[in-house]
Amino acid sequence: MALNRSTIAALVGELEALGATEQVAPEAGRRSAGRPSPVVRADSAGPYVVAADVGVGRIRAARILLGGEVAARATARVPDRPDPVETAAVLAGLVEELTASAPPRATLVGVGVGVPGVIAKTGGVVRVAPNLDWRDVAFSELVAAHLDPSVPVLLDNDANLGALAEHLRGVGVGVDDLVYVIGLVGVGAGFIVGGAPLLGAGGYAGEIGHMRYRPDGEACHCGNRGCWETEVGAVAIARAIGAPAEQVSHLDEVLDDFDRAPEALREIGRHIGVGLASAVNLFNPRLVVLGGYLRSLYRLVGDDVDTALEERALRAPSQTVTVSLPGLGDDSVLLGAAEMAFAPVLADPVTVLSGADEVRA
Amino acid sequence: MALNRSTIAALVGELEALGATEQVAPEAGRRSAGRPSPVVRADSAGPYVVAADVGVGRIRAARILLGGEVAARATARVPDRPDPVETAAVLAGLVEELTASAPPRATLVGVGVGVPGVIAKTGGVVRVAPNLDWRDVAFSELVAAHLDPSVPVLLDNDANLGALAEHLRGVGVGVDDLVYVIGLVGVGAGFIVGGAPLLGAGGYAGEIGHMRYRPDGEACHCGNRGCWETEVGAVAIARAIGAPAEQVSHLDEVLDDFDRAPEALREIGRHIGVGLASAVNLFNPRLVVLGGYLRSLYRLVGDDVDTALEERALRAPSQTVTVSLPGLGDDSVLLGAAEMAFAPVLADPVTVLSGADEVRA
Ligand SMILES: [Zn+2]
Ligand SMILES: [Zn+2]
Repeated sequence: MALNRSTIAALVGELEALGATEQVAPEAGRRSAGRPSPVVRADSAGPYVVAADVGVGRIRAARILLGGEVAARATARVPDRPDPVETAAVLAGLVEELTASAPPRATLVGVGVGVPGVIAKTGGVVRVAPNLDWRDVAFSELVAAHLDPSVPVLLDNDANLGALAEHLRGVGVGVDDLVYVIGLVGVGAGFIVGGAPLLGAGGYAGEIGHMRYRPDGEACHCGNRGCWETEVGAVAIARAIGAPAEQVSHLDEVLDDFDRAPEALREIGRHIGVGLASAVNLFNPRLVVLGGYLRSLYRLVGDDVDTALEERALRAPSQTVTVSLPGLGDDSVLLGAAEMAFAPVLADPVTVLSGADEVRA
Repeated sequence: MALNRSTIAALVGELEALGATEQVAPEAGRRSAGRPSPVVRADSAGPYVVAADVGVGRIRAARILLGGEVAARATARVPDRPDPVETAAVLAGLVEELTASAPPRATLVGVGVGVPGVIAKTGGVVRVAPNLDWRDVAFSELVAAHLDPSVPVLLDNDANLGALAEHLRGVGVGVDDLVYVIGLVGVGAGFIVGGAPLLGAGGYAGEIGHMRYRPDGEACHCGNRGCWETEVGAVAIARAIGAPAEQVSHLDEVLDDFDRAPEALREIGRHIGVGLASAVNLFNPRLVVLGGYLRSLYRLVGDDVDTALEERALRAPSQTVTVSLPGLGDDSVLLGAAEMAFAPVLADPVTVLSGADEVRA
């Protein structure tokens, strides 16, 4: 997945030859920090993927072109603790809806799905997704069963996909060491280290929410006590602002309605900074990107987060780290899922695209 | 630095042509888990490096041949909080001693130094080494000033070098995701992720000792309270076993004299396991290697470490992780420093070796 500039140049040439992209001149007057590069615009009638972000209570999906352009969107509500088989059927329905609205010549080359859970590196299996109440769910298979068998369905942890997208197209372009931390109900993280995604031996890396944080703290669903998530997770935040339980799954919208932070939220901001300091000491990232409800929270209590992080991290790594809102707003996970789904095409465009054409013919 | 098997095969060919190695048949009856490969034996009159492990109270150094064979060793005592300039002179003295005993045709191609501190990725600068009381010390330069200017002096954090050596030649051969945790006075870690060393943006990654562990714990030299190091560092262990302060710098030897662990050590073993669980949740390594005094401690309280880690880590990463003693015993850091010093030779053997010959001529 880690493609350097020259590899990308070679791939763009191949894709053009296959009619998948067109290069256009950069806009006049457009300024960029890096060296100028031609703008690659995906052919809207060319290959596309459907990306899906499985959240708590809803699935957001989009038809996305090469280069990350969102061509169409669709959303479906699901129960808060959804049945995996039903969820797969709903997701497949979104894929069909988005495919039906695509131009006649356009080809679906893959489906990418982000799930808030621990995902095995191979096989498309959700090992555990506490907020969905899933365990050992072969979700890729469940989705693929509804679709044309030639269309691969790829799965990854939502935070990993957010990190990938922010690195390739967001605030982390050109940054080889970054962390994307997402607050959904629990808190997870995806890491880019040395320019490549950190997977870990089995694909399970990034479980930042279960760092030990307060030994005598509250019970965590993982079986421990006082994990970081018990202090900065959605349940703790909802309690701090007196929000009812049914708001926990869309805390980002609730927080967006605040003009300024009550003291209880500022306290949580400090806990976010202190916890991030542990991760900064371990990973020495250049950039920490806060997604999900942490994005809404950082808008309110950014100073508290920054101050606590600076005080608690070691001098050398804290001097060079910046905390940031995502460059892709709410779409980091969705766009990361699209990149994942396009990866086989980029690795072998001739086989995938000609194969897809044959299937369509 | 991450060399795959075919790259190594090509390099070995080049080095043979330059007279640096000879291939010999594997010993009869030798058993190995992997496929058989010819044994590459470094020519003892060929290129070598001097590696040094700067510890608290002493410097260990060795003349090391291609392939990791230790040809000669030398050690020097230094004060517990040594002056950097004097330390560099002592280290250079060890280099000269080891060089003087080398065969006449042999060539020194580099010096590699491991230091227990935060080391910048470029420039050979120790940003901070709390146990030596160093801050912003350009230690590479200080050492190089005593040596032939054609000999590069490379510097890295001791734990990073231990991780590298265990991955290339120790218990972590074939393991692409591992952590080497070293207890010296403080506690540091080096990570191999996806087969490559984790450096972080500035080279400062791996400061595992300063994970938040007990918010109301003891003051840490980093300015925080209750870092993991305050619970499992040498000072805490010395207190647990009633050892006097002067034993803190060689706690490994003190612990090696124990036949079985008193309860206070077993409690520390559990804290080691609980802290490791946070790192396992974040990194999902296949292997955790314990070096320095943690090696001696693990021999005594291994069951307590393992049980606590298994209880506290998430199910998916804990099912696939193993805690291990180093494959290279006390020499992990030294052999990692040698690999670092050989890296420029492996990357460009013709230039480096012919250049070195010219300097000697
Ligand atoms: Zn937990
Ligand atoms: Zn500390």
